[in-house]
Amino acid sequence: ISQPGRLAAASPPNVIIMLMDDMGWGDLGVLGQPSKETPNLDAMAAQGMLLPNFYTANPLCSPSRAALLTGRLPVRNGFYTTNGHARNAYTPQEIVGGISQDEILLPLMLKKKGYVSKIVGKWHLGHRAQYLPLKNGFDEWFGAPNCHFGPYNNSGRPNIPVYHNSEMVGRYYEEFSINRKTGESNLTQIYLQEGLDFINQQSLAQRPFFLYWAPDATHAPVYASRRFLGKSQRGRYGDAVMELDNSVGQILSRLRTLGIENSTFVFFTSDNGAALMSGPSESGSNGPFLCGKETTYEGGMREPAIAWWPGHITAGTVNFQLSSVMDLYTTSLSLAGISPPDDRALDGLDLTPVLLNSSHVLHHRPIFYYRGNELMAVRLGQYKAHYWTWTNSLDELKKGVNFCPGQEVAGVTTHEQKEHTLQPLIFHLGRDPGEKFPISVLTKEYQDVLSRISPIVDHHKKTLVAGIPQLNMCDVAVMNWAPAGCEKLGKCLKVPTSSPWKCKWPH
Amino acid sequence: ISQPGRLAAASPPNVIIMLMDDMGWGDLGVLGQPSKETPNLDAMAAQGMLLPNFYTANPLCSPSRAALLTGRLPVRNGFYTTNGHARNAYTPQEIVGGISQDEILLPLMLKKKGYVSKIVGKWHLGHRAQYLPLKNGFDEWFGAPNCHFGPYNNSGRPNIPVYHNSEMVGRYYEEFSINRKTGESNLTQIYLQEGLDFINQQSLAQRPFFLYWAPDATHAPVYASRRFLGKSQRGRYGDAVMELDNSVGQILSRLRTLGIENSTFVFFTSDNGAALMSGPSESGSNGPFLCGKETTYEGGMREPAIAWWPGHITAGTVNFQLSSVMDLYTTSLSLAGISPPDDRALDGLDLTPVLLNSSHVLHHRPIFYYRGNELMAVRLGQYKAHYWTWTNSLDELKKGVNFCPGQEVAGVTTHEQKEHTLQPLIFHLGRDPGEKFPISVLTKEYQDVLSRISPIVDHHKKTLVAGIPQLNMCDVAVMNWAPAGCEKLGKCLKVPTSSPWKCKWPH
Ligand SMILES: [Ca+2]
Ligand SMILES: [Ca+2]
Repeated sequence: ISQPGRLAAASPPNVIIMLMDDMGWGDLGVLGQPSKETPNLDAMAAQGMLLPNFYTANPLCSPSRAALLTGRLPVRNGFYTTNGHARNAYTPQEIVGGISQDEILLPLMLKKKGYVSKIVGKWHLGHRAQYLPLKNGFDEWFGAPNCHFGPYNNSGRPNIPVYHNSEMVGRYYEEFSINRKTGESNLTQIYLQEGLDFINQQSLAQRPFFLYWAPDATHAPVYASRRFLGKSQRGRYGDAVMELDNSVGQILSRLRTLGIENSTFVFFTSDNGAALMSGPSESGSNGPFLCGKETTYEGGMREPAIAWWPGHITAGTVNFQLSSVMDLYTTSLSLAGISPPDDRALDGLDLTPVLLNSSHVLHHRPIFYYRGNELMAVRLGQYKAHYWTWTNSLDELKKGVNFCPGQEVAGVTTHEQKEHTLQPLIFHLGRDPGEKFPISVLTKEYQDVLSRISPIVDHHKKTLVAGIPQLNMCDVAVMNWAPAGCEKLGKCLKVPTSSPWKCKWPH
Repeated sequence: ISQPGRLAAASPPNVIIMLMDDMGWGDLGVLGQPSKETPNLDAMAAQGMLLPNFYTANPLCSPSRAALLTGRLPVRNGFYTTNGHARNAYTPQEIVGGISQDEILLPLMLKKKGYVSKIVGKWHLGHRAQYLPLKNGFDEWFGAPNCHFGPYNNSGRPNIPVYHNSEMVGRYYEEFSINRKTGESNLTQIYLQEGLDFINQQSLAQRPFFLYWAPDATHAPVYASRRFLGKSQRGRYGDAVMELDNSVGQILSRLRTLGIENSTFVFFTSDNGAALMSGPSESGSNGPFLCGKETTYEGGMREPAIAWWPGHITAGTVNFQLSSVMDLYTTSLSLAGISPPDDRALDGLDLTPVLLNSSHVLHHRPIFYYRGNELMAVRLGQYKAHYWTWTNSLDELKKGVNFCPGQEVAGVTTHEQKEHTLQPLIFHLGRDPGEKFPISVLTKEYQDVLSRISPIVDHHKKTLVAGIPQLNMCDVAVMNWAPAGCEKLGKCLKVPTSSPWKCKWPH
C-alpha cells in the first residue's frame, strides 16, 4: 500500500467517474439529507475526500456532460445555443447537433496510455450516428443517447433506443421497461452489472481502464427496481437514491475484492442540481442552497462530490477547494501521466495536488456560472457575483414551472432576465450559502471584492473564443427512428421528411 | 466494557445534557453544513446515535428549557402566556413569573439516587430569587438567568448578572466582557472549564452526577474567544460553533481520560431552530427546513441531536424515532432507575429502548408543535398537520423582522394567524422536508392521514389540563437590579417602584 499523498508513478491508476443525473448536493446523508439513505456514499466519503465546493459547468445535463468529457466550458466546446439570450439547451430527440468533432474527449486522450474506456448509461452528447460514444474514444457502451422520457407511440416520436456499443439492442418502454405508474424499472441493476463486468474483465486482462458510469434513475421519470421501491422515507426519488447508493457500494466492494482499490481512482458526482420543478416525489434536495436545476444559483450548480483512492487520498478528509467537473478531465489525464491537449483553452485544473495533499489549495481559482451563451455569475473564494439573474419567465411560472419552489429572494430570484453587469449582486457563500443577503454596495467589503473579481471577468470575456454553437437547429428527421442495429431487431421506423427549424429554448 | 444494547444495571450512569442556544439542525457537519466546521460533533455522532427527528417543545428558549427540565409541554408546566393567541413568551428581565413551584425538575428527581447536579450557562426559567436553579434541585450553578443582551446603562435596565451558585459574581459587559463590535468573549471557555471541573470533582468523589451544560454563544449577540474569531468560513456565528464544537470534544475527551465514558450518558441538542431573523452573520442554518426560531415549521422546532454512551449505544447508528427534549427528562430518570412522578401528565417518553436497541421504534408517538397557548401542528409518522399557520405580523415583517428570509410558501408561511382546524394543511416530511407541497385534500392519502391524526388531536385537547400561565405579567421592579450577592460586590442597583403590566408579546 502506497503512502497517502504519493502518486503511484509506476502504472497509472484506473479511473471511474460515477456521474449521477439531477441528484442534488443535499441528497447524500453526509451532506444533510434528513433520511440518511446513503450509507455507502457516506462510507465512501469517510474513506476518501469530500469536496463541498465542487461545481458543474452548466445547470443541466448535456452541457454539463460535454464539459466533463472535454475539460472545457460549454461556451467553448459548442454545447450551447445562440437562439436566445442565456437559454439552457440540451439534446432532445429533435436536436440536429452533437459534440463537435473538433473536441478531444477524455477516453480518446486516455488511449495514449492504453486505457480501455466504457460508458454505461446516459450519453446526451448527441444521438445521431456521428456523435455517439464509440465515435468519440469510448471502446464500449451500454446505455442510451437521450433521457428516458416516454413512452412514445413511435409515430410522432420514437422511444429512445438502448445501445450495446454501436448498435441498438432495444428501446425504453419496450425491451427496457419503465413502469410510469409504479416507477419500477431494473435499469440501474443492468447498469450496475455492466459496470461490474467491465471492471472484472479489464482487471483480469490487467489493462488500465476508464469507466464512465452514468445511470439516470434520479432523472424524472424517476425509477427503481422492485426491491428498492417503497424502501425510502422519501418516496420514489429516495428509492432511486438508495438503489444507486447500493450500486456504488457494490462497485467499491468489487474493487476491493479484485485487489485493485489502491490502483483505481473513483470520483462520484452529479451533472446538475436537483430538479426542483419535478415536485416532491420526483426531485431531490439541494440542501441549504437556492433554487435548482436550470438556474445559476448554488442549487443549480453545486454538486455532491467524493474522491476515493485508498492508499493515496487520506481517508475522511474534507477539502474546500473550488473545483469543477471540468477538472475531472485534466485530473484524469494527470493521473494517467498524459499531457492535456495544448492547442486549445482548457478550463479544468489538475486537482491531484489537492487530492493527494489535502492541505494544498489552488488559490484564486474562479468558478464561472454559465447559462447558454451568457456568463451569469462568478465565484472567487467565498464570494459570488451575479452579473445576470433569472429563474424562468413569468409565463412559465404561471404554467406551474417553478425552479425555486418555496423560495423567493427579492431582486435575486427574478422572473425576467435582469442585468447587473454594472453593479453585480455579491454574496458571501460562507456566511450566506443560501444567497439571501446581498452585500451592500456601500460597504468596503463589496468594493474590495468587486475590484478583485472584475479583472478576472474582464480577462475571461476578452480572451474567450466561443465555439460554434451546436444546439441551435432541430429537425424531426434526426430523431431515433432507425438507429444502427434496428434492422436486426426489426425495429426500424420510417424517417419523416427533413424540415429543420431553429430550436426554441424556453428557459 | 458492556455489550452495546445492555443497560449497566449496577450503578446508574452520569448524565450530561449539552443544550445549545439557537443552534439550527443544519449547523452540524454531519447534518450538512457546507463549511463542515464541527469535527468533534461529527465524531460524536460516529461514536453514538444521530436522531434526525428530534424536536423541541416550543420554538424559543424559555419554554423549550422548561419542557426539557420538567418533561412536560409548556402549556402544562405554565411556561406560556394567555395575553394573546399563539404568542411566544419567554423570560426577559421584566418578567414577573418563572418556573412554578409545583413543577418537579429533573435534578430534584435525580437526588433520589444521590446525583449531584450542576447547571453551567443560561437558565431562562425565571430570574427572581425563588425561581433560580438552586431553588429547583441544582446543587451548583455557574451562569446567568437571562440572555446576554446588552450592554445596558444600569439605569433603565441593568446588565445581566452572572451567578456562582446562589450569588452573583459580576455582570455581562462588566466583569464578564462581551465585545459587541468584535464579538470577542471568553464566556464559552469559562463555561467549558466549569463543566470540566465539575466532571473531575464528581468523578474523583465517585458520585453520580448530572451536568446541564447550556452555553449561549450561538444566541445573538453571537460571540467567540479570540483564538476562534475569524477561524470559520461563516463569520462570527461559525466561529462560535467551532468553539462550542471544540468544547464538546474536550468534554468527551475528559470522560475518556477519567475512564468514565462507559458510565456517562451524553446528549447533545439545541433549544430551538436557528434564529434566521438575526441575519447572515449572527444566525445559523436550519438545513433544508422551512423558516426558523419563533415558528412551528420544521426550521423552528427540529433540532440537531446526538446520543453518546460508549459500550451501550451502538456506534454510528441513525435512529428516525420521533423524539423530543421532554424525553430527556423521562430517559434520564429511567437511566438512573428512578420512577417518574405519577401525579401529573408527562409528555416525555423513555427513549432507552430506542437508544440501547437501535432497531426499536416507539410507534404512534406524536409530536405536538405549540406556540404559546395554541396547538399549531402535529406530526405523526412522516405526516405533519398544521392546524394554524403564522410567521409573524405583516407589520413586523415590514419593519424587517423576517422569520423566513428567502422563503415563501403560498398559504403556508402566512403573515396573519390562519386557522386550518377544519381542514389542516398536511405535509409528508419524508418526501417534502421543506413543507412546500401540501397534500391535496382530495386524495385518499390526505383523508387516511387525517383520520389517523384527528383522534390523537381530539384526545390531546380533551384531556389536556393547562397549567397556570406564568408569563403574563411584567414589571420593571423585578429586573436584575439587586441580585443576591450584589452587596459583597458593591453592585446593587436601586430598585424602581413596582408598576406591573400585562406583557406584550409581539409574535
Ligand atoms: Ca441532469
Ligand atoms: Ca434559544
